[in-house]
Amino acid sequence: MDRDHILLTPGPLTTTLRTKLAMLRDWGSWDADFNAVTARVRASLLKIIHAESSHVVVPLQGSGTFSVEAAVATVVPRDGHVLVLDNGAYCKRAAKLTSMMGRKCTVLAFDDAEQVSPPALAAKLKEDTSITHVLMIHCETGAGVLNPLPLVAEVCASHGKGLIVDAMSSFGALPIDARETRFDALIAASGKCLEGVPGMGFVFLRKAILDKCAGQSQSLAMDLHDQYVYMEKTGQWRFTPPTHVVVALAEAIAQFEAEGGQPARLARYTDNYRTLIDGMGRLGFMPFLDPAVQAPIIVTFHAPGDPRYEFKAFYAAAKAHGFILYPGKLTQVETFRVGCIGAIGRNEMEQAVHAVELALQDLGIESGTPHI
Amino acid sequence: MDRDHILLTPGPLTTTLRTKLAMLRDWGSWDADFNAVTARVRASLLKIIHAESSHVVVPLQGSGTFSVEAAVATVVPRDGHVLVLDNGAYCKRAAKLTSMMGRKCTVLAFDDAEQVSPPALAAKLKEDTSITHVLMIHCETGAGVLNPLPLVAEVCASHGKGLIVDAMSSFGALPIDARETRFDALIAASGKCLEGVPGMGFVFLRKAILDKCAGQSQSLAMDLHDQYVYMEKTGQWRFTPPTHVVVALAEAIAQFEAEGGQPARLARYTDNYRTLIDGMGRLGFMPFLDPAVQAPIIVTFHAPGDPRYEFKAFYAAAKAHGFILYPGKLTQVETFRVGCIGAIGRNEMEQAVHAVELALQDLGIESGTPHI
Repeated sequence: MDRDHILLTPGPLTTTLRTKLAMLRDWGSWDADFNAVTARVRASLLKIIHAESSHVVVPLQGSGTFSVEAAVATVVPRDGHVLVLDNGAYCKRAAKLTSMMGRKCTVLAFDDAEQVSPPALAAKLKEDTSITHVLMIHCETGAGVLNPLPLVAEVCASHGKGLIVDAMSSFGALPIDARETRFDALIAASGKCLEGVPGMGFVFLRKAILDKCAGQSQSLAMDLHDQYVYMEKTGQWRFTPPTHVVVALAEAIAQFEAEGGQPARLARYTDNYRTLIDGMGRLGFMPFLDPAVQAPIIVTFHAPGDPRYEFKAFYAAAKAHGFILYPGKLTQVETFRVGCIGAIGRNEMEQAVHAVELALQDLGIESGTPHI
Repeated sequence: MDRDHILLTPGPLTTTLRTKLAMLRDWGSWDADFNAVTARVRASLLKIIHAESSHVVVPLQGSGTFSVEAAVATVVPRDGHVLVLDNGAYCKRAAKLTSMMGRKCTVLAFDDAEQVSPPALAAKLKEDTSITHVLMIHCETGAGVLNPLPLVAEVCASHGKGLIVDAMSSFGALPIDARETRFDALIAASGKCLEGVPGMGFVFLRKAILDKCAGQSQSLAMDLHDQYVYMEKTGQWRFTPPTHVVVALAEAIAQFEAEGGQPARLARYTDNYRTLIDGMGRLGFMPFLDPAVQAPIIVTFHAPGDPRYEFKAFYAAAKAHGFILYPGKLTQVETFRVGCIGAIGRNEMEQAVHAVELALQDLGIESGTPHI
């Protein structure tokens, strides 16, 4: 039986058939019809975070990481100094790409299980006035922590520092309001909470800093200012766009809007999250994070202590029952992750919990007792 | 009537329904089933140019230009010196991205209508011994010129210089044999002559130089050595792959192999090219290039001299008759381009010529008389 598995992964995720059907057509990348799709996507993205008057949005080919790198390369001057607020694996990746491109980079480390701390940030900015930009991740997918974006933005604004926000796993689901929260750049991607397919990212750039961005990138492909200027002039992408991915995103956004936008999506994901947590709790699984810092996006669970547990076998068993789980990304603790996002609802989450129960049985592990 | 237009563009191009149908499924990017698709694609790509023993192939997210930039960043040391053989717009782009990333870059300029010259290359390499790498474009899509890859490779090998080949528009259609033609890197993309959808590129790297490539890229996203090492170790892409684009490429390659591989594809494109040239000739259109240097990939035609001709109106008229043309990319001469590639054959090319005839009538331009 070759029925599609449900993806409980943080992207690529399960998309609707309607979104995928949009890819059954080839588009000329130079054509006005395709340019109109790009323009519609860009306008919709701005609306989602109320950034129409403050920001522009620039789509970029590649995975989300490409857009993070492009945002740093475009926004931070070559003699800039980036402070990365690090509470997870994706923060470390952002610090790495910043250092590699030759921008000075300092890391302010926090525990993987904790939010980044705005007071600690304020102290650091006071201590090292050479810092020009702060980089934070809104929802750190490594463990699933929701970081306090509005408070971090306030500290950055009051110290006159630029803020770069990786909102990859939060955009579209968690509230972000560009009218109240000041940032120079904010990054997300097609294959996350907007429920498109993977293959492109997009970066919001604050209009006030746009002109300063010209010529800062040492990468042609990742020069978002150049991409922006060309797109404004021609309506086209500078280099071949992933046309099918773009039209799928347009279709996904239409469904996002019809569902009720960000509040509706958050409500569905929160319901998914509660269904998951409650069901997994009944099976004896303990979440890694304190619920107070947990985003309803992806949940890290402690692995069962049972010696018969081994992630690969557990993953294979859950897959045989129809669901794709995700490995943990913590180095100190044995964990696995379950995503709450994608075109799935309560039914799928209930079935997912049931699949996990069956997987435990397959491995001969007793459920119902605490797994830590 | 919302019937799909036929794309006569150099990518994205018209793909088969079978290729697009492969995208009606969501794949976990960490899953073994998806890793198997990636592995199958990589193995097939190596076979196409007989590079199994000499090269590895590394896929990369993004458009073809991203892969060109990644190839230069990965292969050329930071103190390297790249000579770009320039006979068109895409050569100029390659020179620009090389300079931007801080690699020394010299341009050896040729006429847009001529092939690059191996003897001129040899003289230049003799004159400036600081050159470490030569970059050439196999088929320059700007005008459509086929450059003499084997001869250029011979000159590079005899002078001990690295060769980087942008084979974006030729790969899969024109013969390339890695057993006879030595290159350090060769680049192509999914949405070209393999007839996949756009969204990823791939770079062949010569095994003998692989180790030296470690740490040369100043971009994390574009570090092909890092991508290679991670992929060999895990079977996975480092960062989220464009899953739907990858499975579409796998499906496109299966059809490519069933058609008879590169010789069969070249035969079909050559027939497309002849049908186009003959038909357009009857309408009075003159190709820009000497047939001796013309690749059967994309043809540049002189625009009609008639004062009623205007590209936008001509384009719109041809589109109304079902075909998407492509603008010219030459600065000195008024031209337009017509692609011969994609999942199209003689019927489509005959119809395309007929659509051009109807478009001329719509514009009130007489056909049958020479258009230059």
